[in-house]
Amino acid sequence: MNLNLNYFFNPRAVAVVGASNDKNKIGRQILDNIVESGFPGRIYPINLKEKKIAGLKAYVQLTDFSEPDFAKVLVVIAIPGQFVLAEIEKCAQIGIKNIVIITSGFKESGRAGQKMEEAIVQIARKNKLNILGPNCLGLINKAARLNATFAAAGKTAGSCALISQSGAVGSAVLDWLRNRDFGLGRFVSLGNKAVLDENDIINHLASDKDIDLVIAYLEEIKDGRRFMEIVSRLSKYKPVAILKAGMSEVGSRMAMSHTGSMAGSAAAVKAGVERAGAIWLDNLSELFNLLTLFREKERLNSEDKALSIVTNAGGMAVLTADEISRQGLSLGISNDILGDADADCYREALHKMLSDKKINNILIILTPQTSTEVLKTAEEIVAVAKKFPRKFLMASFLGGEGVKLAREFLNKNRIPHFDYPDEAVRIFKKVKDYQNTIKSLRRYSSSVQTRAVRSVSPDYLDSFSLLKKYGFSIIKTVKYSAGKESSYKYPAVLKATGPEFLHKSDKGGVVVGLKTAEELRLAVRILKKKNERAFRNPENYLVVQEQATGFQEIILGFKRDASFGPIMMIGQGGIYAEVLKDFKLSAGGVDFRGALKIISGLKIYPILNGARGQKKYDLRSLAAAMVNLSKLADEHPEILEFDINPLFVFEKGVAAGDIRIIV
Amino acid sequence: MNLNLNYFFNPRAVAVVGASNDKNKIGRQILDNIVESGFPGRIYPINLKEKKIAGLKAYVQLTDFSEPDFAKVLVVIAIPGQFVLAEIEKCAQIGIKNIVIITSGFKESGRAGQKMEEAIVQIARKNKLNILGPNCLGLINKAARLNATFAAAGKTAGSCALISQSGAVGSAVLDWLRNRDFGLGRFVSLGNKAVLDENDIINHLASDKDIDLVIAYLEEIKDGRRFMEIVSRLSKYKPVAILKAGMSEVGSRMAMSHTGSMAGSAAAVKAGVERAGAIWLDNLSELFNLLTLFREKERLNSEDKALSIVTNAGGMAVLTADEISRQGLSLGISNDILGDADADCYREALHKMLSDKKINNILIILTPQTSTEVLKTAEEIVAVAKKFPRKFLMASFLGGEGVKLAREFLNKNRIPHFDYPDEAVRIFKKVKDYQNTIKSLRRYSSSVQTRAVRSVSPDYLDSFSLLKKYGFSIIKTVKYSAGKESSYKYPAVLKATGPEFLHKSDKGGVVVGLKTAEELRLAVRILKKKNERAFRNPENYLVVQEQATGFQEIILGFKRDASFGPIMMIGQGGIYAEVLKDFKLSAGGVDFRGALKIISGLKIYPILNGARGQKKYDLRSLAAAMVNLSKLADEHPEILEFDINPLFVFEKGVAAGDIRIIV
Repeated sequence: MNLNLNYFFNPRAVAVVGASNDKNKIGRQILDNIVESGFPGRIYPINLKEKKIAGLKAYVQLTDFSEPDFAKVLVVIAIPGQFVLAEIEKCAQIGIKNIVIITSGFKESGRAGQKMEEAIVQIARKNKLNILGPNCLGLINKAARLNATFAAAGKTAGSCALISQSGAVGSAVLDWLRNRDFGLGRFVSLGNKAVLDENDIINHLASDKDIDLVIAYLEEIKDGRRFMEIVSRLSKYKPVAILKAGMSEVGSRMAMSHTGSMAGSAAAVKAGVERAGAIWLDNLSELFNLLTLFREKERLNSEDKALSIVTNAGGMAVLTADEISRQGLSLGISNDILGDADADCYREALHKMLSDKKINNILIILTPQTSTEVLKTAEEIVAVAKKFPRKFLMASFLGGEGVKLAREFLNKNRIPHFDYPDEAVRIFKKVKDYQNTIKSLRRYSSSVQTRAVRSVSPDYLDSFSLLKKYGFSIIKTVKYSAGKESSYKYPAVLKATGPEFLHKSDKGGVVVGLKTAEELRLAVRILKKKNERAFRNPENYLVVQEQATGFQEIILGFKRDASFGPIMMIGQGGIYAEVLKDFKLSAGGVDFRGALKIISGLKIYPILNGARGQKKYDLRSLAAAMVNLSKLADEHPEILEFDINPLFVFEKGVAAGDIRIIV
Repeated sequence: MNLNLNYFFNPRAVAVVGASNDKNKIGRQILDNIVESGFPGRIYPINLKEKKIAGLKAYVQLTDFSEPDFAKVLVVIAIPGQFVLAEIEKCAQIGIKNIVIITSGFKESGRAGQKMEEAIVQIARKNKLNILGPNCLGLINKAARLNATFAAAGKTAGSCALISQSGAVGSAVLDWLRNRDFGLGRFVSLGNKAVLDENDIINHLASDKDIDLVIAYLEEIKDGRRFMEIVSRLSKYKPVAILKAGMSEVGSRMAMSHTGSMAGSAAAVKAGVERAGAIWLDNLSELFNLLTLFREKERLNSEDKALSIVTNAGGMAVLTADEISRQGLSLGISNDILGDADADCYREALHKMLSDKKINNILIILTPQTSTEVLKTAEEIVAVAKKFPRKFLMASFLGGEGVKLAREFLNKNRIPHFDYPDEAVRIFKKVKDYQNTIKSLRRYSSSVQTRAVRSVSPDYLDSFSLLKKYGFSIIKTVKYSAGKESSYKYPAVLKATGPEFLHKSDKGGVVVGLKTAEELRLAVRILKKKNERAFRNPENYLVVQEQATGFQEIILGFKRDASFGPIMMIGQGGIYAEVLKDFKLSAGGVDFRGALKIISGLKIYPILNGARGQKKYDLRSLAAAMVNLSKLADEHPEILEFDINPLFVFEKGVAAGDIRIIV
């Protein structure tokens, strides 16, 4: 759904169903948070019995108060599950569109809960209701002075929005931010995503001018194509970062049982997030580090990817340079001002480095030694940062007690501080990669996916003709017929095809290097004898293929993900493709330039490109083949899996050698 | 040197040269630390002018006080560099053996300093002095109640020893430990390592009964063979962990300029540390995490590698399971006790899980939510841990303000706590890997390295005969002579060899698939014409080789590291060996079992082992070849580099196809 969420985030009034005089009730905690956050609109506590709650007039039910426009009211529901549906119906009846269901016990808790949730979704669809949850923490909009959650929100606003599918992860982030000198601008706890999901929220935040960074913790992305469409558009001007749980097989199984729904495969999700141009976070500490780094985002705009170091600890500079190199960044200047450096030394070193036009990014490392003036050094850093408003400074003061106050001071004064220098390096790298990615990022459009389903035969020779329609050359392949051996070109390859021979090589179904008609005849006899039963089914038959020479073997294919659509795969091919594990995935289709870029990321790329004075293979034809297969994938949504393996890449041209289709 | 460091660590008396009434002087800070740490022996402040310092009688010089046995005195020197040598001479004169030189300005500061340091080393050698430093922080021995550094030491003793080549890194660790409820048992700041180095200290700690974990931060390992000898012996019963700076090319260059000495190559260091059975730390945070984990080491003794989770945050459990899977550990039970879990829920869940014999390791994850009783949960964890003294518990309470007190409480009560669950998983994995490694760890002995240098000719055919002596088969190779073409077996390979053809393939010096004498003659003519100048030198000549079939190409070789000796290399071979980067390194020689294990770590291993129903190659002969080459490397110390590429591996046997030696 593409709903207008303006009054959902910026309501004129908020009603809390389940507000209470019992301070232990979640409804009351939410009411208190709304009041304390300074919400300037009208507040309506709803309670069957109470007349007054927290000094506010209370109402028996939603229909009891009057409002000029109910479409501008937000209702927060925190009452036992069995009563929720009736409230939603009331909302629909009086024209309330924006609802948060805090209550849990729905889809996540079994069959009965799922039914209740489905009923809610039906009403929502019919009445175009914006419903967040159920089973969520609520939402916070700092700009609207609205904390409609039962969590403490922290006092400081920020320009970052956090979307969390898990209430627990949301709580942890909010708690981490408490008593820090920066906070979130928006916080949305998605819960069960019965109606509103990450796509709706991200889509709304695209036009939210207060927000310049969107971070989402997600356990599944149900509509990957819409995700790519929204995020590939947004990423261009506002970074989106994704922390996705369930990336291992084990984790993925858990995430499914946790949310009760089928997630896109881990590999597809990663390819899709990459295609959308989003920043991929590996763990919760990276999420915190990104929040920290982004406090000074406007200083990060330089194209410069080199990171310089200034430190009083030579050893730490070496360790940090190791990490810079590991991350593929370049080391600018590493300035070891020695163990006895005081605050003046730091100031002078920084001043000199920052005056150099070539130095734009500095990581300041300090360990507390005898002559170190820890807090004073922090003050000097803040002062010098003010003098150079276009340069990027971050710091890592190592140790414990001795650096505590200085860390807090840096925090308060917007110098990103990291517990360890290598964390600083890693998150810096991610942001620089993002800045680089969006330069060539194309918007993804899911519209090509809507073609009618055509029927494709999984027959071996038929599927070759399908490939031909998309501009592929095929190694000459004909059905074997007994007695015609002398008409084939030698050396030849004999192959068994059909449903019993999906993995030909494993079944001995490929015989190469047949030099004469004699040899072919013998090979046919052996193969037929070994697979007598299979050949009783006419769908299994033999083909004869010309033997290619002077090639590299590539595997090119796609697998259709229910959420993200076709995920293209290209890699080192041949019978050992699975062993070599040299492949790249991409979601959302490829164009020629994109294909060349993907190919250049393969380990086999230097060989294709003529390493060690050897011949070069036809990379442009290979890229063109990727583009063509990508078209085929879009236009044949009935094909679930498609592998060309091997795709022979010659010095000139490419040709399909074998093919496997699953419809 | 294998010196006795007993009185170095446990002196009867300590003299501080450079003690002063000026509290800003480092000599005074050291004196104060010695007094405050409660050192029970005699303390002698040495100062040219003062009569009394910090309430103690002061002496003009080292020769002014009397002691029953000067060999049991430790002297700490903190005076300007130009006066240090004279003090060392005095020590030698009166029989003082144990000295710490705090003063900097020696080797690390240029030519003049280096000369002073060399003079000190000479006296030390002659008089068998144990000298730590110069340019160091000093040493701490908690058992002897001795803090002979100018850093604050923290109050609590521990069973871990830290050796740091960098004073700055040492300071950071000491500061990190301050106000935590555990500390170091021994701390040694190595400084310039003029006399005592990491090997001497580790060797001493091997027999130090208080210490059960040795961690070293090192910038170079000068004597890698001795390191492997000492550590491979120690690791068997006492873990050693190494954090090595300078592992990237950039970092390595910095480490060299930082310490002014040539370090072993990064790859050799890693192979050597692995060979020694030490735990490899990737960064400073892992060092802290290992310290944290080891507080409960006795609970970690179970063979069980599975890690279970209990949490109130389903999302965090999924992320943690992802990390467990990524690390190759197995997930035990993941117990999501849901967001409203209070302290009782945690206690009951833990009790139930720990009563299960199959569960030995639990990671407890908590995020602060509405019903969460953060501190009370920490108390329950401590209580339940006491009830199950053989089971291993660690915790990660996520957030900020809301979990601060609970984290401190866990710390105080010996429950290892980590900022993030994935950190806990990673360090748990490292310790489990260590426990697994030492089971099959062999002690390394450097004695085989002492053979006399023989002379080896780098001539191509001669080097083949050297290989033959070590049991290698060689593909039949003869010098080409014009007119004898009809005597060779076809198909044949023509190769140009000699100093101009070290990288034959790159120079077109290998022609394969010559089917007849005709073709060979033609190939010879073309090759000679292309390289006319090279063939004027008789060291360059042509050879004819039989063409092998039915093989996999392997590269097998070694490179001699100045510190760690020969580093064996095995990998996917052929002309693309450098592109494919599928190789493993090992230091300190291999035996047959070790060789098989290394081979099984190659990416090409499944292919060698007959993946996908294909033929199997002769892994045992390949392993035997590794062992033989390892012998050759030991017995020919004059050979710096040796590559067999390709080494053909057949279904039966292996044979060298080409060879490159650098003497």
